Amino acid sequence: MEQDNLSVVLHSKGDLRLEKRPVPEPGPNEVLLQMHSVGICGSDVHYWQHGSIGDFVLTKPMVLGHEAAGRVVKVGSAVKHLQAGDRVAVEPTVPREMDEFFKSGRYNLSPTIFCCATPPDDGSLCRYYTHSANFCYKLPDNVTFEEGSLVEPLSVGIHACRRAGVTLGSTVLICGAGPIGLVSLLVAKAMGASQVVITDLFPERLAMAKVLGADFQLTVKQGDGPQQLAKRVEGLLGAQPHITIECTGVESSIQTAIYATRSGGVVVVVGLGSEMATIPLINAATREVDIRGVFRYCNTWPMAIAMLASGKVNVKPLVTHRFPLEQAVQAFETTRQGLGIKVMLKCDQNDQNP
Amino acid sequence: MEQDNLSVVLHSKGDLRLEKRPVPEPGPNEVLLQMHSVGICGSDVHYWQHGSIGDFVLTKPMVLGHEAAGRVVKVGSAVKHLQAGDRVAVEPTVPREMDEFFKSGRYNLSPTIFCCATPPDDGSLCRYYTHSANFCYKLPDNVTFEEGSLVEPLSVGIHACRRAGVTLGSTVLICGAGPIGLVSLLVAKAMGASQVVITDLFPERLAMAKVLGADFQLTVKQGDGPQQLAKRVEGLLGAQPHITIECTGVESSIQTAIYATRSGGVVVVVGLGSEMATIPLINAATREVDIRGVFRYCNTWPMAIAMLASGKVNVKPLVTHRFPLEQAVQAFETTRQGLGIKVMLKCDQNDQNP
Amino acid sequence: MEQDNLSVVLHSKGDLRLEKRPVPEPGPNEVLLQMHSVGICGSDVHYWQHGSIGDFVLTKPMVLGHEAAGRVVKVGSAVKHLQAGDRVAVEPTVPREMDEFFKSGRYNLSPTIFCCATPPDDGSLCRYYTHSANFCYKLPDNVTFEEGSLVEPLSVGIHACRRAGVTLGSTVLICGAGPIGLVSLLVAKAMGASQVVITDLFPERLAMAKVLGADFQLTVKQGDGPQQLAKRVEGLLGAQPHITIECTGVESSIQTAIYATRSGGVVVVVGLGSEMATIPLINAATREVDIRGVFRYCNTWPMAIAMLASGKVNVKPLVTHRFPLEQAVQAFETTRQGLGIKVMLKCDQNDQNP
Amino acid sequence: MEQDNLSVVLHSKGDLRLEKRPVPEPGPNEVLLQMHSVGICGSDVHYWQHGSIGDFVLTKPMVLGHEAAGRVVKVGSAVKHLQAGDRVAVEPTVPREMDEFFKSGRYNLSPTIFCCATPPDDGSLCRYYTHSANFCYKLPDNVTFEEGSLVEPLSVGIHACRRAGVTLGSTVLICGAGPIGLVSLLVAKAMGASQVVITDLFPERLAMAKVLGADFQLTVKQGDGPQQLAKRVEGLLGAQPHITIECTGVESSIQTAIYATRSGGVVVVVGLGSEMATIPLINAATREVDIRGVFRYCNTWPMAIAMLASGKVNVKPLVTHRFPLEQAVQAFETTRQGLGIKVMLKCDQNDQNP
Repeated sequence: MEQDNLSVVLHSKGDLRLEKRPVPEPGPNEVLLQMHSVGICGSDVHYWQHGSIGDFVLTKPMVLGHEAAGRVVKVGSAVKHLQAGDRVAVEPTVPREMDEFFKSGRYNLSPTIFCCATPPDDGSLCRYYTHSANFCYKLPDNVTFEEGSLVEPLSVGIHACRRAGVTLGSTVLICGAGPIGLVSLLVAKAMGASQVVITDLFPERLAMAKVLGADFQLTVKQGDGPQQLAKRVEGLLGAQPHITIECTGVESSIQTAIYATRSGGVVVVVGLGSEMATIPLINAATREVDIRGVFRYCNTWPMAIAMLASGKVNVKPLVTHRFPLEQAVQAFETTRQGLGIKVMLKCDQNDQNP
Repeated sequence: MEQDNLSVVLHSKGDLRLEKRPVPEPGPNEVLLQMHSVGICGSDVHYWQHGSIGDFVLTKPMVLGHEAAGRVVKVGSAVKHLQAGDRVAVEPTVPREMDEFFKSGRYNLSPTIFCCATPPDDGSLCRYYTHSANFCYKLPDNVTFEEGSLVEPLSVGIHACRRAGVTLGSTVLICGAGPIGLVSLLVAKAMGASQVVITDLFPERLAMAKVLGADFQLTVKQGDGPQQLAKRVEGLLGAQPHITIECTGVESSIQTAIYATRSGGVVVVVGLGSEMATIPLINAATREVDIRGVFRYCNTWPMAIAMLASGKVNVKPLVTHRFPLEQAVQAFETTRQGLGIKVMLKCDQNDQNP
Repeated sequence: MEQDNLSVVLHSKGDLRLEKRPVPEPGPNEVLLQMHSVGICGSDVHYWQHGSIGDFVLTKPMVLGHEAAGRVVKVGSAVKHLQAGDRVAVEPTVPREMDEFFKSGRYNLSPTIFCCATPPDDGSLCRYYTHSANFCYKLPDNVTFEEGSLVEPLSVGIHACRRAGVTLGSTVLICGAGPIGLVSLLVAKAMGASQVVITDLFPERLAMAKVLGADFQLTVKQGDGPQQLAKRVEGLLGAQPHITIECTGVESSIQTAIYATRSGGVVVVVGLGSEMATIPLINAATREVDIRGVFRYCNTWPMAIAMLASGKVNVKPLVTHRFPLEQAVQAFETTRQGLGIKVMLKCDQNDQNP
Repeated sequence: MEQDNLSVVLHSKGDLRLEKRPVPEPGPNEVLLQMHSVGICGSDVHYWQHGSIGDFVLTKPMVLGHEAAGRVVKVGSAVKHLQAGDRVAVEPTVPREMDEFFKSGRYNLSPTIFCCATPPDDGSLCRYYTHSANFCYKLPDNVTFEEGSLVEPLSVGIHACRRAGVTLGSTVLICGAGPIGLVSLLVAKAMGASQVVITDLFPERLAMAKVLGADFQLTVKQGDGPQQLAKRVEGLLGAQPHITIECTGVESSIQTAIYATRSGGVVVVVGLGSEMATIPLINAATREVDIRGVFRYCNTWPMAIAMLASGKVNVKPLVTHRFPLEQAVQAFETTRQGLGIKVMLKCDQNDQNP
């Protein structure tokens, strides 16, 4: 194994560096991974630009990256289900305590959970990375590393659609056609949604949504009234959607989500805006439109990989840019500018394939 | 049968009259009831004082009252499960159309549903009243008429606690110790809640809550900060409550409800305030605290009557005032002044017992 | 409208007749339909051959047929959502009483429910038929009458998969590749199942299952041991399936279903065999494999039609034979011999298209 | 700390010995407990008498006991939430692997789980015992050690009632009034059941059930027909029960459970009889009566302790016999003879209080 471990480290707001770190040793329940493909997420860019997200504040240098897949090169002494050579997708969150949330199957809510690239926990955007073996999932031969790394954003869509209760014949409104809106679209369709309307400010993002299977695209303009937009959605579908997945975090869009959703339905809040939001709560309450948030995901990797392996969900079109790890800053700049959909960093010098 | 049908009619905002109407004839699927006990609800008083609630506006005279129990005196030709002499509790809502909501067991969401004393539908505060036999439920001998009429507010509590998912060992915060807060308390306890904290501005309402089984009473002052109150609730219970049932409709109380609830828990919005509410949506969303409203109730009468018959829920202490039907205006005035908890109108001249 | 109403009437066991009946008049809440396409179900043939199914015994002549679609030619006085000319699919069950099952959204369990071609209720295999308008569902232009009639068997698959909880990434074993096994396969895939194994005695039925999307086909032989078959299923999938849908009713297959299913999973019993069955109950109980039956369906027509309209479920390959109504006996004989999958009777003399 | 660790060790079928073992050292995530009260379970006696239960076969000496409470005397280096002196109830099962079952909140189904007194894992019937700190739960001051040890059988009732979906107004049939039937009764009532019928062969067990809150007791005789018993249950309740909890494992009782349960209801199989059972599967399936088993419990300790602390569930009457640890053989003999309900062994020489 080579000695250097090139890593993308955020030292402080705006100060992103490529630096060599020692190759870590896996603990008894860990594996050492040679990273292959790591996608850049909006949150990575946000930490770079702002140094914090909500209560999570960068106070010391942190490796970025949490959409990751790589190859096992060494296993800890207690690891049984993986071996060197296995190709794996990395679930970036690992519960630290066996608390009530973990025991009841909602480990994402555990307040002490480890999460890649959430301060102060280091991420996986580097050459060599150690991770809990229990949160590394073997990839079948017909699933690429890049697909493996895209399990992370796909998991956001799975968790959102599952919390929403998307099922056969559901009609779904998705607000926002960015990466999360698009994976939610893919997942909603795969879970049986009969029709999906997707909205965005930008027609080119809606065009991609159409390619990925959206039934209706609705271009929103600044200043469109929430109730008016809700009516347009109803007009497109012939009835109000059962479910709305709000991926923008914009207050007016959250309002639209509530007005648009059918009585007895669900609004899932995925996008995060300002701490306080003014919403038509009585409209939601008296029509029993539930408002449910999502925090990351839990128990999604196995089903996501199963869907990729079966070919029922195709995430490959999401990758629009690729950079070698050495050009990480340029890659981050590309994401910052909102170019394309998903920018992938290729961490293995000897294999830059998908 | 006597000829007059003394009824409490709201002619317009502020204009409440006692007048004699003809005794109606039951249709084929209806029963004619001789009313016995009808409770006054805050909404009855609100229509009297304001002439409307939200989009429901009084445009012609309407009989008030929807918390009702009486005796069957005549059955329609197609009615099989009831007969003259049966004592029944009246579910005041009756779906008119077999739409998707009705077919799927959520008839309360049916937009065309009939509802006693919701304009333009007449209520049941009178001597003789006809109602769909399918929405009249026979009372066992050990359940009084007054208990039968209290099934209506009790149903609000049942529906709220059921939507909240109260179960064995749940810890529950109830905001507001008015009639709905109190029935929610009774129901939460009966569904297995281990501890209930209840809040109110008025110590005397909290004193009644204590009598009815609240474990902790928290007196709230105007200006108390939501996060500070949430901390006090956590302090009382030793942990955040799993569930909060918000019965005040006050914006700051809704905020408290969200901050106070444990991650993965549920806030049920029962109280209705202004159309738009400013809430800490990100706090709720990222901790997966679901926000669920309730609209009246559905499928609650049988279980409510079963609980009353079994003695597991005791609603009798809620009735603090009784008036004969002839003194309806005085009874409404008592409710308007917020005296006591539940004011009961006794509609049967020959039987004014509970 | 023509005067004769050619109908397929079962007079007694083995005595199937084509006879002319008067054209009925729709009641206030009914529609008169000119039938277009009616599929033959195994139960129709069973009544013909045996005169009874379980407790349902033919005691007077009964029109057969319950997989039906037709065109509205007259509407009852109270019907609002349909009009003459509308093309509709017919849900053959109509609850007669507003009992606890209907009110809570499980009207299929209502003991007094009407059901086409279940003694003593007449079916819809005729030229003109009246039905509750609330249980006739308008077909979009891009859904054919035959697809409309296939909503009935498709609904069995939907109800089974819904009771099973099929969702994204589910692995599913389906025992039996007859019409119900095949529609369950289509639905399971549409609800997100990643892999489906299907079993049958006959390779030609498995070949059709492969065409319809099965991932693995397993030919079963008389005498194969249930535990051995369970192992083979596990071998094919690499793990036990989450869900098994048992469509044969054969005791050994029910045993296989239990042994094969993953701990915490579900076996849905769709096929009906003899009244008593000997099963490995402890194996199921201690691994918390739930055993759930299905009785017909409820609340499936809208979602089934939505799926057909969206093109996500393709039932067209299921229709392998078509006969004009006048050749009904020949059509029944074809089904009796187990030829093909679905035999369709064309009831409209002027339009024998799909 | 004294040096000897008196333990109740089963060497082989019929060979139960009291012997001194070394006091163990807690690992980093463990606590060392001084045991206080350990109840004897039917399974302990079964291992003693038969040497095995199903696939679990005693192949080397094993300490018995798994209904346990004690005091922390030493904590492992990584333990944060407990300290010496804490009084705790012991959940006897501890998952060993972070597998799919554990991650999704159903760790009881994990095939590699540790379980006290299930071969080859040692139990807790001794003076000093080490256990995973994460599966030791602190007892409030108002909950006794004996109540703490009874959390184990109570958990069986909680898990059964939770799997059954007992809720407000449920009517419940419990087959068998042994310890598990009785705790199921207590829990069903605490979760809101309005009426509980309990059956048994022995009137004295039914008498205890009446004391604990059963509404109806039904004495069963050998040879009573399942359908006839089902009718009697319906007669007592005035309707079929929503839920049946079968605690006998006897085939005819399982049949009764199915016939007795209301359409759309649930039969929970708690009692275990012979591997294969002959049941009226079609009756269950066509009425959508679900059959669900239970395997031990998961996530029950916190809610059980909360219920005991709140006084809503009173398990104290269940303890009918107490023996000092030194008289363990006599205690086991008492349980074997079926005397009383729960026999408690007192492990702390200096404190034999409840």
